[in-house]
Amino acid sequence: MSANPRGFASDNASGAHPVVLAAISRANDGHVTAYGDDPYTRAAMDLFRRHFGETAEAFLVFNGTGANVLSLQAAARPHQAVICPETAHLAVDECGAPERIAGTKLITLPTPEGKLAPDQIAPATARLGDQHAVQPRVVSVSQATELGTVYRPEEIQDLAASAHERGMILHVDGARICNAAAGLGVDLRAITTDVGVDVLSFGGTKNGLLIGDAVVFLRPGLADDFLFIRKQSMQLASKMRFIATQFEALLEGDLWLQNASHANEMAKRLAAAVARIDGVEIAYPVEANGVFARLPRPAIGRLLEELPGEHPFYPWDEDADIVRWMCSWDTSDDDVDRLTQAVARVIDELPG
Amino acid sequence: MSANPRGFASDNASGAHPVVLAAISRANDGHVTAYGDDPYTRAAMDLFRRHFGETAEAFLVFNGTGANVLSLQAAARPHQAVICPETAHLAVDECGAPERIAGTKLITLPTPEGKLAPDQIAPATARLGDQHAVQPRVVSVSQATELGTVYRPEEIQDLAASAHERGMILHVDGARICNAAAGLGVDLRAITTDVGVDVLSFGGTKNGLLIGDAVVFLRPGLADDFLFIRKQSMQLASKMRFIATQFEALLEGDLWLQNASHANEMAKRLAAAVARIDGVEIAYPVEANGVFARLPRPAIGRLLEELPGEHPFYPWDEDADIVRWMCSWDTSDDDVDRLTQAVARVIDELPG
Amino acid sequence: MSANPRGFASDNASGAHPVVLAAISRANDGHVTAYGDDPYTRAAMDLFRRHFGETAEAFLVFNGTGANVLSLQAAARPHQAVICPETAHLAVDECGAPERIAGTKLITLPTPEGKLAPDQIAPATARLGDQHAVQPRVVSVSQATELGTVYRPEEIQDLAASAHERGMILHVDGARICNAAAGLGVDLRAITTDVGVDVLSFGGTKNGLLIGDAVVFLRPGLADDFLFIRKQSMQLASKMRFIATQFEALLEGDLWLQNASHANEMAKRLAAAVARIDGVEIAYPVEANGVFARLPRPAIGRLLEELPGEHPFYPWDEDADIVRWMCSWDTSDDDVDRLTQAVARVIDELPG
Amino acid sequence: MSANPRGFASDNASGAHPVVLAAISRANDGHVTAYGDDPYTRAAMDLFRRHFGETAEAFLVFNGTGANVLSLQAAARPHQAVICPETAHLAVDECGAPERIAGTKLITLPTPEGKLAPDQIAPATARLGDQHAVQPRVVSVSQATELGTVYRPEEIQDLAASAHERGMILHVDGARICNAAAGLGVDLRAITTDVGVDVLSFGGTKNGLLIGDAVVFLRPGLADDFLFIRKQSMQLASKMRFIATQFEALLEGDLWLQNASHANEMAKRLAAAVARIDGVEIAYPVEANGVFARLPRPAIGRLLEELPGEHPFYPWDEDADIVRWMCSWDTSDDDVDRLTQAVARVIDELPG
Repeated sequence: MSANPRGFASDNASGAHPVVLAAISRANDGHVTAYGDDPYTRAAMDLFRRHFGETAEAFLVFNGTGANVLSLQAAARPHQAVICPETAHLAVDECGAPERIAGTKLITLPTPEGKLAPDQIAPATARLGDQHAVQPRVVSVSQATELGTVYRPEEIQDLAASAHERGMILHVDGARICNAAAGLGVDLRAITTDVGVDVLSFGGTKNGLLIGDAVVFLRPGLADDFLFIRKQSMQLASKMRFIATQFEALLEGDLWLQNASHANEMAKRLAAAVARIDGVEIAYPVEANGVFARLPRPAIGRLLEELPGEHPFYPWDEDADIVRWMCSWDTSDDDVDRLTQAVARVIDELPG
Repeated sequence: MSANPRGFASDNASGAHPVVLAAISRANDGHVTAYGDDPYTRAAMDLFRRHFGETAEAFLVFNGTGANVLSLQAAARPHQAVICPETAHLAVDECGAPERIAGTKLITLPTPEGKLAPDQIAPATARLGDQHAVQPRVVSVSQATELGTVYRPEEIQDLAASAHERGMILHVDGARICNAAAGLGVDLRAITTDVGVDVLSFGGTKNGLLIGDAVVFLRPGLADDFLFIRKQSMQLASKMRFIATQFEALLEGDLWLQNASHANEMAKRLAAAVARIDGVEIAYPVEANGVFARLPRPAIGRLLEELPGEHPFYPWDEDADIVRWMCSWDTSDDDVDRLTQAVARVIDELPG
Repeated sequence: MSANPRGFASDNASGAHPVVLAAISRANDGHVTAYGDDPYTRAAMDLFRRHFGETAEAFLVFNGTGANVLSLQAAARPHQAVICPETAHLAVDECGAPERIAGTKLITLPTPEGKLAPDQIAPATARLGDQHAVQPRVVSVSQATELGTVYRPEEIQDLAASAHERGMILHVDGARICNAAAGLGVDLRAITTDVGVDVLSFGGTKNGLLIGDAVVFLRPGLADDFLFIRKQSMQLASKMRFIATQFEALLEGDLWLQNASHANEMAKRLAAAVARIDGVEIAYPVEANGVFARLPRPAIGRLLEELPGEHPFYPWDEDADIVRWMCSWDTSDDDVDRLTQAVARVIDELPG
Repeated sequence: MSANPRGFASDNASGAHPVVLAAISRANDGHVTAYGDDPYTRAAMDLFRRHFGETAEAFLVFNGTGANVLSLQAAARPHQAVICPETAHLAVDECGAPERIAGTKLITLPTPEGKLAPDQIAPATARLGDQHAVQPRVVSVSQATELGTVYRPEEIQDLAASAHERGMILHVDGARICNAAAGLGVDLRAITTDVGVDVLSFGGTKNGLLIGDAVVFLRPGLADDFLFIRKQSMQLASKMRFIATQFEALLEGDLWLQNASHANEMAKRLAAAVARIDGVEIAYPVEANGVFARLPRPAIGRLLEELPGEHPFYPWDEDADIVRWMCSWDTSDDDVDRLTQAVARVIDELPG
């Protein structure tokens, strides 16, 4: 029995998929050249090309902040700017790393349901050419979004077109790109390479890896200096094989899809169940592995106290009484049902 | 049989110790809070305090570059400078990360055998107070050094005293601190906390871990902002438990010492054996796990071609015909003997 | 007769006051030590102390961007953040310099009439202590604001109190601090030192100097490293006497007040006159030297074509049909009257 | 009579040439557009093209540190490096600005007489392509050098060729480029545009201006983003006309040459005179406006005490008993003779 109860705090509260761990054990064999010049890394690079097309150049990094910030460093010089939703992880949860490390300013825009619309880009570029203003160079969107919604392929395509018309680059923060593809029922390139994405932060950690994310350049030329940017920005692993082999496990078969689909299904199951409880309202469309729900305020406090674990889930918007429940590759039907029952019970027990 | 032959390229060409892998498997259980607020990380923090004393505050990071640069960020503002040997990893092998990320200039000094002497510090601080010059704030030395030599405790103490007299901080790049302690036959605090080291980059990756290093603050106050510095500098792991549990494996018993001692013994065995070969000269005292040897130039080329693996070892100083042979926790007597025999043979076969 | 017609584009479209030029000529005598160790600079420092109190430490810099960004560098480390109005010059007109050079993120808040309210600070600090978020350290407001409004002394005091309660610093971007003091009819310390301002960007260029602004530290301790920050950030003048002597001219008598009062009076005269024209609406209270007015859209275009000079004034908010007319130390009654007549005429001539 | 005695401390201890001051007075007329969109700036740009050729793009900045660091920002990304003499102003007298602001590491090389030799470049680029090492992108030399020596045109050409062969850029720190041209008896383009210099820091302040230097791009394409780099790096003057008009004064006729030639002649006069004094040895060839001389140590102290002014000159190399005497556009024959006599006298008075 586990000492660590499963909850709904985050998809990085879960551990690694057993197939991923097994791959690490297999790769723990003898000596290979450090820093990525090894057969495991070459095999992972091949797999990225298989999924994203022949021009894809993937570089493994340690974490999502690294993937995002290094993408920006490759795409923009410091006087250039990044247009992104005001809810972007880049903007609110990376402790100012984009500004500090890439030197770029973020131009944040309001986005109902977390999705940037193509017609928001033009107004944000009104000062192109004005030396007193940062110069927009990158549009960055999260797929799936921070609010659990997903851009359809044609929405990405429209964003890309709008960016490219203005000489800009489209970056996708794909910490949950697999959940997005699974939710849409498409392969990975259908929402990236094929619709004009230029550079992608590919999330591994939240989809069953131990440690590891990647920057995948889809537009030729963007990666030219990236080996140096990665090293200088402290994201080059010496025993790279142990990150690479995890990606092999994820991308060789369909583990990426299995893990993401499962998490998505658990979110749908949860949303469907809690939506039937009086007093619960689903806040945003459930299109990936997160459920955002509005609950009576006292119920939130009671749930946080009563459910097992230090942080069984996180409040998302305390003013609006919205909580976030994230499902993971290892979330079970039982986990969902227990949460549903707890929600029903605490609401039922609230003083009339 | 291994597909990956063991060589002498680097102590990060080796994999992870089986005990470390087993710890990772055990920690792969259920959900825990991400970003370090978990029992595995707390246990690792306790172990650092056990080894380094009650004031030690440890923070886990991804790699050695991260540990070094973040140490400097905590200790120095950008107009301040770091005095270090011209052979320092910081200065030559981190692609300018200290300058780019910490913003600090490195003042590099020549050091025979890789060891900075206390009396080199005063001249390098001649411009303290001069607004046109960077202001020395940190002395940084590697222990063991890049040349496989080791500072004795009293040498560290003298460096610390010289730094402290001038209001400066002593940083130790301890990518191989365990090898140094093992080589000296002392515990970890005898060459750090007890002799005035203020902040330490503690190397895990090169001593049998998969991925993981640490910044250990020994002087109270230095760590005050470090949570934010680590996050902003992209070195905060979300599934922290998988780094933490490796350090538990290393530090709970004496695995740190076993691994380091073994690597050191292999280096001594190798040095003793090759020193007996005509034409081979040991370049620096062998005090940790690296052997630097001067060989006839044509022999170097032949060895690189004939030994198995892509990079069986690396030339170190091509002008001086010095090669570097690094031993690891998994280097075997046989590995050493085979290298020795190969060296003897290629030298013997050189045309008279 | 002048080849360069006076307009209302900006208070830095004007030249230098004759007394300022005369001071430069007088200081152009023999040799003095470079970089600020000269009698002119010492005299200017004394004058800053006379105006701002004995603890004031002033440092001369080249321009307003320099004064603002260097203030932030002194007050905040890069993981810390600056709370400011979304209209702040820092945020919109310095090409990302605060992010790029100081490394800090700006947390921008909406402010009707350009003035931050003390009760906006607390919500913006909700994530103090959360390692994923930048940590607010500075509140920065412009005095006078970008919209020509002025904080009353007690408003500044309330902002300072709110900042200080949370361990934060109050910075004032005083590019037009003299206009604010003149508008309020108080001396300079009444809206700075005496009400809790910690560091001030003191604007000289917009108030009749040729080139020159200053950072004035009012809280002891903040200036400790500033000599180095200024030099490293490329804001140290070698022939400092020529900046210093301009400040002597400004601060020795009441030239600072004369220039600012005159500009303010011209703004009031202009506002009063145009307000009487049908179709013109004054957009914000006229409390310093800027007039913001809403005009019929076609009238704006006509005025820009017909008035002399390349940029007789600038549109401010094109969607809202608001223009900005800035008055300067050298704006004359005639200038104001001619603009008023032109406005009346073009509106009158608009097709019914 | 002057209150400020002329000495030999630095060419920025002197003031501005009267013609420069007169130009400022003339430009102080009416309103012009701020930030460089004015007729004075356009005229200055034309003059730079007249001197440096039609492709020259000049940008005015505040000071030499700004000119140097912004040149590097335009030419190199942070993982790239700058090769320069270990005596370079960039390396020793800019408080780490190149590292902090441009993010680039400086690779410093020993240079007898301050001059880098073309054959020093190749060894410094040995690690091109190695991801662990910064990638040399710029060669930077000072002309005249920090030691008062001057590169001949063919020496610059050889450096440029050596840089260009490796895909690198040649930057010249021309704080004293006019002194170099005057010393060689050539025009400005003969040692810049015509011999392969790609970007030049053009020094105005040390050659009779009040405040003002320039970055002059000679290789097309390098300046593409420079408007934004200048603004973001805080080097954009609002009342630009007052810097521009100084350059007009300098470059319209031959004031640049008169000032520089005069200073050079004074240096030659001084060197010739002191060389005849027993105990004085000229340390480096006197090819521009600086004289470096070795003196008996006690004589140095006596001179510093007895000569008028706070810093009549500066010791240069205290270990080697070398002093630096800088001549300026306003140094007179009498000044030189008085210094010569003082040197002779204090040496003569030394106890036998």
